[in-house]
Amino acid sequence: MASESKSKPVRLVIVGGVAGGASAATRARRMNEDAEIILFEKDEHVSFANCGLPYHIGGEIENRDALVVASAEFLRRRFRLDVRTREEVVSMNREKKTVTVRRHAIEGGSAEATYEQPYDKLILAPGASPIVPDLPIAPGLPSVDAANVQTLRNLADMDRIKALVDSTKVKRAVVVGAGYIGLEMVEQLRRRGVDVALVELQNQVLPLLDPEMAKPIESSLRENHVELHLGVGLESIQCEGTNATAVRLSDQSECAADLVIFGIGVRPNTQLAVESGLAIGGTGGVHVDQFSRTSDPDVYAVGDASEPIFGPTQSPMRVALAGPANRAGRLAGEHAVTGKSQPTVPVWGTSVVRVFDVSVAMTGLTRASARRFGVEATSVTVVAKHHAGYFPGAEAMALKLVFDPGDGKILGAQCVGGSGIDKRIDVIATAMHFGGSVRDLTGLDLAYAPPFGSAKDPVHMAGFAATNLLDGVETFANSDADLEGLQIVDVRSKAEIEKAPLRNADGVIHIPVDELRDRLDELDPTRPTVVSCAVGVRGHIASRILRQHGFNVQNLSGGATVRNRCFDAS
Amino acid sequence: MASESKSKPVRLVIVGGVAGGASAATRARRMNEDAEIILFEKDEHVSFANCGLPYHIGGEIENRDALVVASAEFLRRRFRLDVRTREEVVSMNREKKTVTVRRHAIEGGSAEATYEQPYDKLILAPGASPIVPDLPIAPGLPSVDAANVQTLRNLADMDRIKALVDSTKVKRAVVVGAGYIGLEMVEQLRRRGVDVALVELQNQVLPLLDPEMAKPIESSLRENHVELHLGVGLESIQCEGTNATAVRLSDQSECAADLVIFGIGVRPNTQLAVESGLAIGGTGGVHVDQFSRTSDPDVYAVGDASEPIFGPTQSPMRVALAGPANRAGRLAGEHAVTGKSQPTVPVWGTSVVRVFDVSVAMTGLTRASARRFGVEATSVTVVAKHHAGYFPGAEAMALKLVFDPGDGKILGAQCVGGSGIDKRIDVIATAMHFGGSVRDLTGLDLAYAPPFGSAKDPVHMAGFAATNLLDGVETFANSDADLEGLQIVDVRSKAEIEKAPLRNADGVIHIPVDELRDRLDELDPTRPTVVSCAVGVRGHIASRILRQHGFNVQNLSGGATVRNRCFDAS
Repeated sequence: MASESKSKPVRLVIVGGVAGGASAATRARRMNEDAEIILFEKDEHVSFANCGLPYHIGGEIENRDALVVASAEFLRRRFRLDVRTREEVVSMNREKKTVTVRRHAIEGGSAEATYEQPYDKLILAPGASPIVPDLPIAPGLPSVDAANVQTLRNLADMDRIKALVDSTKVKRAVVVGAGYIGLEMVEQLRRRGVDVALVELQNQVLPLLDPEMAKPIESSLRENHVELHLGVGLESIQCEGTNATAVRLSDQSECAADLVIFGIGVRPNTQLAVESGLAIGGTGGVHVDQFSRTSDPDVYAVGDASEPIFGPTQSPMRVALAGPANRAGRLAGEHAVTGKSQPTVPVWGTSVVRVFDVSVAMTGLTRASARRFGVEATSVTVVAKHHAGYFPGAEAMALKLVFDPGDGKILGAQCVGGSGIDKRIDVIATAMHFGGSVRDLTGLDLAYAPPFGSAKDPVHMAGFAATNLLDGVETFANSDADLEGLQIVDVRSKAEIEKAPLRNADGVIHIPVDELRDRLDELDPTRPTVVSCAVGVRGHIASRILRQHGFNVQNLSGGATVRNRCFDAS
Repeated sequence: MASESKSKPVRLVIVGGVAGGASAATRARRMNEDAEIILFEKDEHVSFANCGLPYHIGGEIENRDALVVASAEFLRRRFRLDVRTREEVVSMNREKKTVTVRRHAIEGGSAEATYEQPYDKLILAPGASPIVPDLPIAPGLPSVDAANVQTLRNLADMDRIKALVDSTKVKRAVVVGAGYIGLEMVEQLRRRGVDVALVELQNQVLPLLDPEMAKPIESSLRENHVELHLGVGLESIQCEGTNATAVRLSDQSECAADLVIFGIGVRPNTQLAVESGLAIGGTGGVHVDQFSRTSDPDVYAVGDASEPIFGPTQSPMRVALAGPANRAGRLAGEHAVTGKSQPTVPVWGTSVVRVFDVSVAMTGLTRASARRFGVEATSVTVVAKHHAGYFPGAEAMALKLVFDPGDGKILGAQCVGGSGIDKRIDVIATAMHFGGSVRDLTGLDLAYAPPFGSAKDPVHMAGFAATNLLDGVETFANSDADLEGLQIVDVRSKAEIEKAPLRNADGVIHIPVDELRDRLDELDPTRPTVVSCAVGVRGHIASRILRQHGFNVQNLSGGATVRNRCFDAS
């Protein structure tokens, strides 16, 4: 219960509130009552819930004020912060330790003016800006300036889009980009009764996922009457006056549009850092150390414009997510005003999105990104229920675990389904924080009662399958494997097979698992063999029987459910 | 994709199906097609969902068949197991490597008979039996034999209780014991419209929890018109004929009862092990090594009757939970037929229960059990929402973190509230598996989108508070601390304080946190001080201000919400 000696005064300047800046400022104040803390924000709102913006447009969050996490007035009152909104830091002089600030003209108010602001410590939290392709839509009118061509990054963007939708002039919208914001906007626009076409350059929605894990989301979109245009780019935007009326796609199709929303990614706001000569990392963000210090020890950078360590590769990488930005901001604020803090820890890119009644979460590497990063990886996929199957309301999920084929270290996971997918990813992300292996997952002591889980949780099931693979007990075929030339044995019942035959598989031999031991003579033990069932459980049993009879056999990971992309097969 | 060499034949005998036995048998088969696997079960059902029993009585699980996880016939067919139900192993001869088996007489069938069954390897999974106090309720009639005095352990018990409730003769039930099964039965009986009195010898429901964490459950019970009798024992049971009509409690009150259900714990079925001279551990279970081998290397024991390592103490302890039993069974089955397996890992006692619309989960040690085990521990409690507060439907939870005051190692956690409490406990249990500290919790990369969580998750908030404590940034008063003689500063608004004044606190000084810096002269810096707010967030800010002005100050953990036991205060 000891009191604290007085801390030394320090002048801390923070650039940007939303992407970790406000977290930095409030922690800095709590750690140092005597610091002078100046928080610059070029826009009107210094701290708002940017992840909530789509939901106010859709009406799911009714109260706009709820999105203003901390107003400038609140931050002044509670934390004695010198909050300066509509003031933009336009340059830095690191030798003089000053920044140049431009006051933005307020409508009907005074003209713009600049001034110099000295600092002892500086934290850059400028965030990132949405990318808008530079498509000319009319002579002298770039797409970004059309009244109904929008991006969604702040409250002003949200207000503009919501006003358009509220005006009931928007019957039909085109959303470009099927990432998180794009999908959230699609869902919320459908909620408002707007017809939506979704355009994505990649051949799948959520290009960060492995393709088969994105399929249930695509099904959900189609069920909710969203028109999907995958694998096509945007060629041009048609306009009447300053309003877009349609978009033309690279496959020469055309989508009418009363509203076009771009959700095709963000560009880090590193201009200040670049101009002042701070080191920039390999992925285009500001290089930082484990205390978020840039190449200038008096200048910190946090959030979307910086490069924290990405756990799976242990290399610096930009990760545009709210959680890591907040946590890095908090620690940088403390370090800046006290000279010490806990170090930041690697981030894993953990994220989640709800798309109607299907949700998907991921952390770390996918098979595809592992390939891209040159990381050797293998994977298993299990399909299981989110709580005990015998308890009403159990919802299916597919959980894919990506791991090192040598030592079993977990590299990443993806989980798609209904309730409880976030829990499984959080558990696995926690294991990854500790450098855990798939063996660790088999022994986790997770909470079980029928309304909450299973004695053998999907996390355990994935761990079991992965450990079997590591130990040479079982091998797996990927759900989208080419089965050409293999002896394929489907061990489901006749009724199941008739209902949902295995996709892209010729010459399948049908032997229900319970008859397999008695019908081995119908199979050729010299042929490479694949077994398949609904989700992989009976396939596991069959593969164990066959292996012990000398077969060279793989179990189709996730069974027909994942291969056929159908969650009802279980 | 290599095939496998033939495994050697081994005769495996397993005693008991439910508590890990069936898991052992099926894994053993998968790992060794040539093993002879005999599974004895003295009852009718070899594998059923014992955690689901209350929910069928209450009608939430309508289909009784859903509770039969694996019938004997199914296990024979799919796994070629020699399943022998209604056959009880009554003794073991470890020198001869045989067990003596008694065939139970089937109604109208042949008389009982015994025979010897040889084994190479033996797995004991006898589970545990419910404790029934030996209360004489009439001359010659012990309570356990009264027709309407019941325990709930298997399908036959369930059927008896359900038949009584279905007969509509049960207007009023007394449930004795407020542990998991007791509470689940209370909830499900209320669902059936039965008036329920709940009797618990301890002064709280869920005696495994710290008292204040059980309060929201008690509130939920009262709101659902359950009559609570806490801190009283059962003195006698009144009967008419062979039917109980009332129970008399130690406080001399009497509860009428058409049905009495005991849920006061279980006793491990260690008779076989004891009689055959196997080593018994300090908590009354069979002593086992990390492969679940008993003091006889050819005999394994798993489940409720064994003593796995309890993580927080690293000592053997009985843990009567389904998950650990299943996992230990699986590994023991593999080890018995192949001579190797992964080792079991420590268990943490992770568990969860739903009681109407409030749920509570826990893992590891509480403050109370840490004291009992002689483990030095401290704790923090945070109150937070299960997802972003600005997104509709956010539900409050209280999360208590118990940890080592020296190095911050996490010893346990308890979480009570609505949705999402299981997720937080699973994340923390995962961190504990890896020996994680509260510092690790601050950096976890958890999935965030408004419908799922917050950028600063309750797990982070608890980690922040605990780390502040470790680092000397903040100290906490326990929610039930005696505040007598302390300078108490309530930093909430006037309106909040009028609505819910701080319980058991005299002479409280009211200074809203935003005014604190300007009103320091109203406080005496020489007096030990406690600050309080609604949940502890403003208290944290206030405590930081006061500490930096030389005060010796504690923040009331969980604020008025936890002290006043009211989740609406946030």
